[in-house]
Amino acid sequence: MKKYAFGVDIGGTTVKIGLFETSGKLAQKWEIPTRKETNGTKILPDIADSLAAKIDELGISKDDVAGIGIDVPGPILDDEIVNRCVNLGWGVFNVAERVRTLTGISEVKVANDANAAALGEMWQGGGENHQNVVMVTLGTGVGGGIISDGKIIAGAFGAAGEIGHLLVNKEETQLCGCGKKGHLEQYASATGIARRAKEVLTSSNEPSALRDIKDPDAKAVFDCAKDGDKLALEIVDFVGETLGTALASVSCVFDPEVYVIGGGVSKAGQILIDTVQKHFVAAAFHASEGAEFALAKLGNDAGMYGAVKMVL
Amino acid sequence: MKKYAFGVDIGGTTVKIGLFETSGKLAQKWEIPTRKETNGTKILPDIADSLAAKIDELGISKDDVAGIGIDVPGPILDDEIVNRCVNLGWGVFNVAERVRTLTGISEVKVANDANAAALGEMWQGGGENHQNVVMVTLGTGVGGGIISDGKIIAGAFGAAGEIGHLLVNKEETQLCGCGKKGHLEQYASATGIARRAKEVLTSSNEPSALRDIKDPDAKAVFDCAKDGDKLALEIVDFVGETLGTALASVSCVFDPEVYVIGGGVSKAGQILIDTVQKHFVAAAFHASEGAEFALAKLGNDAGMYGAVKMVL
Repeated sequence: MKKYAFGVDIGGTTVKIGLFETSGKLAQKWEIPTRKETNGTKILPDIADSLAAKIDELGISKDDVAGIGIDVPGPILDDEIVNRCVNLGWGVFNVAERVRTLTGISEVKVANDANAAALGEMWQGGGENHQNVVMVTLGTGVGGGIISDGKIIAGAFGAAGEIGHLLVNKEETQLCGCGKKGHLEQYASATGIARRAKEVLTSSNEPSALRDIKDPDAKAVFDCAKDGDKLALEIVDFVGETLGTALASVSCVFDPEVYVIGGGVSKAGQILIDTVQKHFVAAAFHASEGAEFALAKLGNDAGMYGAVKMVL
Repeated sequence: MKKYAFGVDIGGTTVKIGLFETSGKLAQKWEIPTRKETNGTKILPDIADSLAAKIDELGISKDDVAGIGIDVPGPILDDEIVNRCVNLGWGVFNVAERVRTLTGISEVKVANDANAAALGEMWQGGGENHQNVVMVTLGTGVGGGIISDGKIIAGAFGAAGEIGHLLVNKEETQLCGCGKKGHLEQYASATGIARRAKEVLTSSNEPSALRDIKDPDAKAVFDCAKDGDKLALEIVDFVGETLGTALASVSCVFDPEVYVIGGGVSKAGQILIDTVQKHFVAAAFHASEGAEFALAKLGNDAGMYGAVKMVL
C-alpha cells in the first residue's frame, strides 16, 4: 500500500502543490512560481525539482508515492496530452510522459483545471457523496467541469463542460471572449454582472445604493441586494435567471445530481444559490427538477484535490 | 466463449427481438406484440417465453447465451430499474431482476430506448468507429442519447440526452409536450416542421409548391426544398439553424466526436445534415467546430442493437 501522492495545480502565476496521504488527507501544501519564459519549458522541470526536494526532505521513498496528478489551464486529451495552453506558452505535447521521465514516477495523469476542480469538489467539497456533478466556476469568466460516475468527462475536443459558452441570448451585440456572441459568460461572470449593473444604472432612474459606488463590481451588487436594494435585487435575479435557465439546458444533456457553484462570484453565498435554483426549477425538464445546488468548499485548492484524485 | 446474446427493444406496440452472435452479427430477428393490458404485467413473461422458444427451436444451450439486453420507452436507473413507463403501464420496478428470474439467464441489462439507439448507432451505425457520440432522433418528438467512452450516460434522474427539451426560444407561447415552453422539440420534430410550414404559408404571400399540398408535413417541406422551392428552403434553413445552434450548446456540455441524426425526419438525407452542420459550425465554441455529422443507419433496429451491445 502506497502512502502518498502529489496533486499539482499549474496556474498562470503560481504552481500549487499538495502532498496527500493516499487516504485523501492533505498533509502539506506549498507553491512555486510558474516560470513562463522560453515557452514554459521550465515549468515541468521546476515541478519535478520541487517534488524531489520534498521527497528528500521528508525521507519518503519514491516507492511510497502512488502517483502525480496535474492540472493545467488548457484542454487535455486522453489524460495526458495538452492541446495548446496559451497561458503557459505550451503547444501540443504529452505532459504525463514528460513528468514520468523527469520524476521517475510512472503513475501520472493530467486534466484541465476546471475539470480537476470539479473532481476535487465532488471528492471532498460541495459535491461530496455524489458521483455525477457539474461544477460551475463564476470568476472573470465562466468555467465548468463535468463528472460522470466519479470521472472527468473531457470531451472529444477537450471542450466538455465549457458551459460559459452556452448560447443564452441571440440578440447580444457585444462579443464574448471566445469571439462569438450571446454566451453565458457574458452575463454570469463577475465581468458580466458588473456590465449589467452599469447598463441598469444608466437606463433606469430608480434610486439605488449602487449609485454611490464608483464602477460597482459583482460583490457590490450582491452586497446591496442582501441589504434589500431593489435595483441590485433585479440584477441578481437577472443573473440567476440567465444561469438557472442555462443549467436547465445542461440537465437536458448531462442531468447531474448536483450543481456545485464556485469561483469569486460564489462568495455571494446562499442568495446566489437560491436565485439560480429558483429559475432552474422553473425551466428544467420535469425529471431533472430535483437536482441539488451547493456552494464550492475547496476554493483555490479544488484543482489540486481533483488532480491528486485522478491517481488515487 | 459464449456464442449468442439477445437484444430486446420494447415499444408501445411491438417488441423487437434480435438473436445476435457474440461477434455482433444479427443472426435472426422477429417481433411479438406488446400486451399492455393489466398494467403491462404480461410483457416480460411474453418476452421470456419467446426467448425460451427460440432457444428450444435452435437447440442452443442456455450456457451459450452471454446475456439479454433490453430497452424500454422510459427512464432507467442503474442499468436495471425502470422509473415509470407510462406507455407500457409500468411503475417503478427492477426489470433486470424480473427478467433474470423469468429466464434463468443472469446477465441482463436495461436502458432507455433513445439511449440504446445511440449505443447501437455508435456500434454498427452512423457513429461507427467513434466512442463519444450524441444521437438525435427527429420523429414526432425529438429524442437523444449520449454515449461517452462507449457507454450510455443515463443521468442522475434518467434525463441525460433529453435534448428535445433544450430551451431554444424564450418567446414561444405554445406549450411543449412536457408542459413547459420554447423547447427544441417544438421546432425540429416532424410536428414542429409541419407547424412552421403552416405558419410561414399563412404569414407570407410568396408562391410555393407547398401551397398545392394540403397540410404539408416535414417530408413535403424537404421534398420541395430539394426541388429548389424558396419558401421550403427557408423553412429547412430555420430548422437547421434551430437544431444546429442547439447542438452547439450540447457541445459546450458534452463535446462529442460525432452527431448521428436519425428518426423519420432524417430520411430527408444530406440536405438536413448539411444545413444543421452549417449552423452548428457558426455557433459552436471553436474547439468543438470539427464535430462530425452523420445520418443514422440502423433505422428501427438501432434500439435492439444498442440493447444487445450492453451485454457483449
